[in-house]
Formats: sequence, structure tokens, C-alpha cells
Amino acid sequence: MTRLVLLVTSEKLDRLCIAANLSAAAAAMGWSTRLFFTFWGLLALIKGRPSSGVSRDYATYEPPLRSAVESGKLPTWVDLIRQAKEVGDVEVYACYTTMDLLSVKREELEDFVDDVVGAATFLSIAQDSDVTLVI
Amino acid sequence: MTRLVLLVTSEKLDRLCIAANLSAAAAAMGWSTRLFFTFWGLLALIKGRPSSGVSRDYATYEPPLRSAVESGKLPTWVDLIRQAKEVGDVEVYACYTTMDLLSVKREELEDFVDDVVGAATFLSIAQDSDVTLVI
Amino acid sequence: MTRLVLLVTSEKLDRLCIAANLSAAAAAMGWSTRLFFTFWGLLALIKGRPSSGVSRDYATYEPPLRSAVESGKLPTWVDLIRQAKEVGDVEVYACYTTMDLLSVKREELEDFVDDVVGAATFLSIAQDSDVTLVI
Repeated sequence: MTRLVLLVTSEKLDRLCIAANLSAAAAAMGWSTRLFFTFWGLLALIKGRPSSGVSRDYATYEPPLRSAVESGKLPTWVDLIRQAKEVGDVEVYACYTTMDLLSVKREELEDFVDDVVGAATFLSIAQDSDVTLVI
Repeated sequence: MTRLVLLVTSEKLDRLCIAANLSAAAAAMGWSTRLFFTFWGLLALIKGRPSSGVSRDYATYEPPLRSAVESGKLPTWVDLIRQAKEVGDVEVYACYTTMDLLSVKREELEDFVDDVVGAATFLSIAQDSDVTLVI
Repeated sequence: MTRLVLLVTSEKLDRLCIAANLSAAAAAMGWSTRLFFTFWGLLALIKGRPSSGVSRDYATYEPPLRSAVESGKLPTWVDLIRQAKEVGDVEVYACYTTMDLLSVKREELEDFVDDVVGAATFLSIAQDSDVTLVI
């Protein structure tokens, strides 16, 4: 099975949209996808956390993105990940080291998180992937 | 033929310079290169758009980069891409989903854009590449 | 030997921590690692340069990262690279084109820099790697 691996290092809305859209496209193609949320990306996995804005460099372009999400034209990144998990082989991992660093506990994480792993697991899975991208 | 695939997600001058320099190096080595401009990167493909500054995190270092480009010591990223296309197998793709999101039309894009494609095309081409990088 | 290649394009503390942690994990797994510092990443290699802050997008999260480093809970990125070089096959390269652009001389670079190379060398090494990431 062809595999996509994404290392998600940001919790900004624009970066999460890129990660979610690639995951959805991969699931629709019958690929398996593994997402590793590390560093600031880990924050995106905290349950009930208010949605972050876009990267500041692109703040002037935020309105069209936000209105597309709010109008339902573009699904939220979480909905995209959930849908991708329903149709395909998609797993979401949280980085253990980051959780320790930022004092985030397992029970604070969203229910679509499949496991908590370390950098060695990420590297092993990336080694066997077809496409690995840092988002 | 060895292939480099670049997913360009930024329209900032510094990121475009990295993408263009890697494309030029790959062309000189006889590699083929495919550049996919998506999200904010898509904005860089709009014809006649004024050149963007560098990422804000590095604004204090912008002067040497800008003066190198203005003095001609460093070619502009567009000139580098055009030159790479002349000597090698380089193709530039614009992301369809982003164009729809930001209401950008095909005729607004630079003439060096070869095609408008979606995420599935990007993933398929990345699967067969030797090096894939997110810029 | 399995190989990890990192293209480090930032001198921000958070990005350097990601690069150093991946290098340390790879070394512990018996992988070889090659780090190419280019563009703003090159600045991180200048001897005696004061440590940079985190990316501005994440400035509000800087305190826990900084206190983890200052308390010794998290090693500095330089210490992690030095340790990884002691236990594994880790080499650090500085980008020649960037040094020319920013007028940085070889003797200004940290002693853990193994060589000064260009984009063609980076691409050749990335071609033979198992995992290549842009940080």
C-alpha cells in the first residue's frame, strides 16, 4: 500500500489545512497516511482548543480562508481528518517528547489521536513511506 | 531520469529563492523538476504581482538578499525558473483547489505555468520522485 | 546504512530543536545523518552568535521551551548535535551560496561544521537518502 507520512510542526490554520487536504486526497487514492504532530503542531490536537489563525506572514489573506471554512465550502481540518479516517487507512500520532515539554496529558488529546509515539517511531515509519512531507 | 519535486507553499521572497535555486541546480545536473505551487505559494504565480518581502521572522536580514537581487548578483526567482526551463525538464503547476479558494483564474497566472492540477496529481508525481521537499 | 537528510532553512530555536532531536534519534537508531544549513539556517552556524528566539508565530509558547533548555531538562540544539556526532555518523554542511550572499567566511563557522558545499551536493546526497526533510 502506498504511504504518505506527514510531520505536522505547526498549529496554524493554513498549515493544518494543507495537511488535512493531502490526507484526504491520499485516502481517496487508496493510500495509507500517517500524521505525526510534533512541537507546535501538537497543540492542534488538544481537545476543545479554540481554532488558531493563519501564519502571521499571510494574515492579510486570512479572510477568504476563514469565510470558506465558515460557509462550509471548505471543511474544517478536523472534519477532513475524520472523513479521511472513515474512508481510508489514516492514523494520527502525537509526539511524546513534545507532550512532556509542554505538559500536555494523553487525556487532553482529541479522540482521533491513535497513539503517542517518539521520534524513533516517526523515523521508522518515514523510512518505509513513499512520500514524506514536513508541514 | 532523476526527479526533484517541490511543494511551494509560500510566496515570500526567501522561500521562492530556495525553490528556484534548487530547481536551477537540479536542471544543471540533468534532473527533471516539478514545482507545485499551493496555498500561499499560488499567489507567487499571479502575473504582475509586486514582489513579496521575506518571511517576517527574517525581516532584519532582508537587505543583503534584496540588494543581491537588485544588483543582479542573484537572479530573481522567476528568471531562475525560466532559465531552468530552458536548460532542463522543469514544469510548473498551480493548485486547482487553491485557485478556487482564492478566486484566482487561469488567465491571471504567469506564462511559465504549465498546468493547473489537484492534490492527487501532486501525490502521484511525488510518489515517483527521488527527492520531494516542502518549501 | 539508513540515512536521514535534513535541509535546515531557519535559525529559530524551535526549528533547530526539531532538527537536533531528529538527528539525535537517528544517531541512536544507528542511522547516518547529514544536515545542510542553508539560507537563514546558515546563520545558526556562526560561532558565538547569541541564541535566536522561536518563530514569531509561536512566541507565546516560548517560555516553556526556553525554561526546559535553561534548566537542562532539554539539551541545547548544539549539544544535541555534538552528542549525535559522538555516537553516530552525523555530518554538518554549510551552504556555499548562502555564505557568499550573506558574506559569511569559513572561519566564522562553528567547529562542528564538516564542510562547505553547494546545492548540487545536497541534491546528490538527498537522492540516496531514506528520509529527507526540510526544517
